[in-house]
Amino acid sequence: MTKVTLIENAVVITMDKEDILNPGYILIEGDKIKKVSSEPFDEETKKTAHEIIDAQGNFVLPGLINTHTHAGMSLLRSYADDMSLMDWLENKIWPAEGNLTSESIYWGTLLSIVEMIKSGTTTFADMYFFMDDVARAVQESGMRASLSRGMIGFKGDDSLYEAKEFVKKWHNGAEGRITCMLGPHAPYTCPPEFLNKTLSMAHELEMPIHIHLSETEGEVTDNYKEYNKSPVEHLNELGIFDVPTLAAHCVHVNDEDIRILADNNVSVSHNIGSNLKLGSGIAPIDKMLSENVTVSLGTDGASSNNNLDLLEEVRLSSLVQKGFHENPTLINAYTALEMATIKGGETLKLPEVGKLAPEYKADIIVIDKNSAELYPRHDPIANIVYSCNSNNVSTVIIDGKIVMKDGNLQTIDEEKVYHEADKHAKMITDQDKN
Amino acid sequence: MTKVTLIENAVVITMDKEDILNPGYILIEGDKIKKVSSEPFDEETKKTAHEIIDAQGNFVLPGLINTHTHAGMSLLRSYADDMSLMDWLENKIWPAEGNLTSESIYWGTLLSIVEMIKSGTTTFADMYFFMDDVARAVQESGMRASLSRGMIGFKGDDSLYEAKEFVKKWHNGAEGRITCMLGPHAPYTCPPEFLNKTLSMAHELEMPIHIHLSETEGEVTDNYKEYNKSPVEHLNELGIFDVPTLAAHCVHVNDEDIRILADNNVSVSHNIGSNLKLGSGIAPIDKMLSENVTVSLGTDGASSNNNLDLLEEVRLSSLVQKGFHENPTLINAYTALEMATIKGGETLKLPEVGKLAPEYKADIIVIDKNSAELYPRHDPIANIVYSCNSNNVSTVIIDGKIVMKDGNLQTIDEEKVYHEADKHAKMITDQDKN
Repeated sequence: MTKVTLIENAVVITMDKEDILNPGYILIEGDKIKKVSSEPFDEETKKTAHEIIDAQGNFVLPGLINTHTHAGMSLLRSYADDMSLMDWLENKIWPAEGNLTSESIYWGTLLSIVEMIKSGTTTFADMYFFMDDVARAVQESGMRASLSRGMIGFKGDDSLYEAKEFVKKWHNGAEGRITCMLGPHAPYTCPPEFLNKTLSMAHELEMPIHIHLSETEGEVTDNYKEYNKSPVEHLNELGIFDVPTLAAHCVHVNDEDIRILADNNVSVSHNIGSNLKLGSGIAPIDKMLSENVTVSLGTDGASSNNNLDLLEEVRLSSLVQKGFHENPTLINAYTALEMATIKGGETLKLPEVGKLAPEYKADIIVIDKNSAELYPRHDPIANIVYSCNSNNVSTVIIDGKIVMKDGNLQTIDEEKVYHEADKHAKMITDQDKN
Repeated sequence: MTKVTLIENAVVITMDKEDILNPGYILIEGDKIKKVSSEPFDEETKKTAHEIIDAQGNFVLPGLINTHTHAGMSLLRSYADDMSLMDWLENKIWPAEGNLTSESIYWGTLLSIVEMIKSGTTTFADMYFFMDDVARAVQESGMRASLSRGMIGFKGDDSLYEAKEFVKKWHNGAEGRITCMLGPHAPYTCPPEFLNKTLSMAHELEMPIHIHLSETEGEVTDNYKEYNKSPVEHLNELGIFDVPTLAAHCVHVNDEDIRILADNNVSVSHNIGSNLKLGSGIAPIDKMLSENVTVSLGTDGASSNNNLDLLEEVRLSSLVQKGFHENPTLINAYTALEMATIKGGETLKLPEVGKLAPEYKADIIVIDKNSAELYPRHDPIANIVYSCNSNNVSTVIIDGKIVMKDGNLQTIDEEKVYHEADKHAKMITDQDKN
């Protein structure tokens, strides 16, 4: 019998045409939302419920969607900071990554999943390696994820075959919570020949592509030197954008690049926290949005952010545009929250995710209102975007299942994850000290 | 008999020459720190203790110092966002502020104090009105504060007399936790004649000055039109900087302005969250720091931030400089945390505050390490600055007294504050709807 869960007495932020229902009521059947209403449930409906959540006036909204991260990198959080990019990569990150194992990626990913669930993220897009272990962590935890085997084209075609196997094994796996993409790392690490092979495979497997694009000024300059065009033009001319594409970063894009992204329905994952911390720069998302590019939000890996708190990215993506352009009307609260919800679903080609509406997946978070920074509440969306601390997320539902209840994880042994992640983090970094 | 409190088994971040003691032990006698050591206490010392806090490996650091806010404005949080500055002020903030009462300021300030204590702030600098009610909230809550009656010079001299009375009544009040400054609002709201009177009073009462300075481009342009010089030059020539001065914002300052600030030991309160949100711009704190200007951090009021989370300001002040200047080595983690601690003490002319060292005031916070974003901990300072969620602050000591223990406020009825603040927030904003 399909499980029925009811949510009562909530301030429901639907992300559906700016509707806020207060009080609002949500009926969940199995993995889906069946009804969102301002009418209380009748006794008949209540009798059918397996679980009733009395939200007591708390905020209820769609689970947040992190469209670009490398979950296993949480093991390298606080390992190397305040360094110039190449010094950081060459002397700290790459050597440590070389020590990563299947087991360490598994625990690092679980650590990231704990952090994401506790801060309200219900779906994440990951690009890394040892992806079977990432998928295993997703399957066990109840998370939703879009997974890509990261591929460096210079290193031969092994990763392509691995990616194909991964797609065959995991696409639509974990009761449908896992979907896949192909993940050529970036134009500067994947030569045209490799990108062509990736494109053929994308057509063959009907897979979208997830790629880093124009993150730093240096890679754009290098691309012009090598191909006499921008990385965006380069990928466009190779035909990459013929398949649905998720482009992460897009910091250094010009007006023509933005037009190409818009014309080809390329979705952008804006990673403002990481872009700031690595000194990459500030992506022109105001322009992208005005050109109707789909812009969503990602944290990037925890070694360059240094957390996976998507509400922080929501706030940053609004504040930084306002401050940088000296215009407080840019990226209003609703637009910022849209990027973390419904636009995230669009970006990950998950049309049933990111909104509280009938037939959408039941990915839902409850934010406890009893915290000083949420008083008063003249405007619930502004409260969430501009003042809310993500630790106020109390209950999280993914695919109709409660994975956190009143702050307690239901599917993961949190203490064990901390212990194992800490142990593996020490192992991979201690090796480089010898 | 003087109360003795011991803190054991902590990761003590002293903010004293980058020393981290792990494990570290702190002996508190009355309102002061007597000893900070890596040696466990002997049985003799333990016998003298009235309270022993076993920190169990948690992070212990100096309480954070918020050097510029308007605490009562928390009642206007989420009341008006995403608006251009003058539209926001003229049509929303000023009319609502006109409805503020003595009681509403009291409850708004308490709401802010709850938020500040819970997020690790132990001292704040406030400039507003109905300051007796602000002082009352500070006295009752156990907070430490530097208070200034905000004065608009265009409105006559009443506020000057009020400020004088306030200083006489409250300076060194609340067992020494309250100190005062004189608060002429800004050069553009205080004509030279009024500033001269303020300066005389500052000399007479031996009070520092707390003033808004060069927050927006518009006020700098206007200052040039009226006086043919920058606001910084203007204040300097009026002799304001002859008394110790706290200048809030300093967003639009040029190299010459920075030199003047440095030469005159003017302390700057950097309010990056508010500066971003209001579209004011990004202060050149990297330059100020390299010229040895004392830079500390402030949240500004909660209606333009929209929270009073100083750890968020710490992170923003580092990330935004790195991103804006495309240089990840700017404002490293230690420098950022210094601005929120020891530099805050310097800014507020509280030389005994902001460091964990003998003879410093016992203003201490404990951050619970058991949270996903604090694992692993290759570098505790990076953990706190770049990934920590301020909700992990578990215990707060101010002036030697425990004001929050394991997340529970000891001096404030939190529920009552939420209820009253909400009620007063509705009252002041409902009036404008009629």
